Amino acid sequence: MKYLEDIPIGERFEIGRHTFTAPDIKSFAQRFDPQLFHLDEAEAARSHFGALCASGWHTAAMWMRLMVEYRRRDNEARRARGEPIGRLGPSPGFRELKWLKPVYVGDTITYSSEVIETRPSESRPGWGLMTIRAEGVNQNGDAVISFISTAFVERRPSP
Amino acid sequence: MKYLEDIPIGERFEIGRHTFTAPDIKSFAQRFDPQLFHLDEAEAARSHFGALCASGWHTAAMWMRLMVEYRRRDNEARRARGEPIGRLGPSPGFRELKWLKPVYVGDTITYSSEVIETRPSESRPGWGLMTIRAEGVNQNGDAVISFISTAFVERRPSP
Repeated sequence: MKYLEDIPIGERFEIGRHTFTAPDIKSFAQRFDPQLFHLDEAEAARSHFGALCASGWHTAAMWMRLMVEYRRRDNEARRARGEPIGRLGPSPGFRELKWLKPVYVGDTITYSSEVIETRPSESRPGWGLMTIRAEGVNQNGDAVISFISTAFVERRPSP
Repeated sequence: MKYLEDIPIGERFEIGRHTFTAPDIKSFAQRFDPQLFHLDEAEAARSHFGALCASGWHTAAMWMRLMVEYRRRDNEARRARGEPIGRLGPSPGFRELKWLKPVYVGDTITYSSEVIETRPSESRPGWGLMTIRAEGVNQNGDAVISFISTAFVERRPSP
């Protein structure tokens, strides 16, 4: 992770992609969203979705997973290049989460993040807040999820 | 589920509670949020959280699970009383999700929902939109999560 001061507004990066399989969709749904259209192909066919599709919370949670892995790879690359690594702090939350289209079995979602704001924290010295617009797009180019997320990011230490 | 027209603004209901255990927190984190403070007690003790705590996405997903189970129980009770059951449709998304405090091992979160708006859908005849404020509160009375969620709800059929 770069320090807050080194993150340019407008920076956009693809964090990864995930193909949603039927077992994947059902195992998430059994634990967190046991509605029939996320659990059973025949019931889903009769629902407003028309076919088995992932829980929206599953689509959102996969963004988090891919983001953590992206940050890990990015930090390893920074370390290999001898660059400093800023810490990423907790997220106070997010806003405007939209499930724009269903995610069906076999859909591959490509997730990206775009930095839309950075500012120093008023409450935590040494830290700032980075706001990103996160998006997931399916293999047809249709956006399926978007939201705006904020997280604490370490500021560049004074020399 | 009641029909849209039968849902009073301000109606508040407890949907259920969940105690977050260490295996529970770690198994979610392994799959969706593999950050060390959600996976390992010693690493968490050294982090800004100070102890192992649940992924915010886990806290949010448990709301969904408890809401689905609440709706199921409520529909069974309505069926037993011979009352009509309105259908609950998909959710277009939610907004203003706030993770207000960490959820630590052993914390019991009580989730509730309060209806803050109902209105007919402009795009889907026969359906309306219900907006609720969801909240999770720990055993000390501290709110740990809140968000505003919207879902499609069937309108009362014309006689």
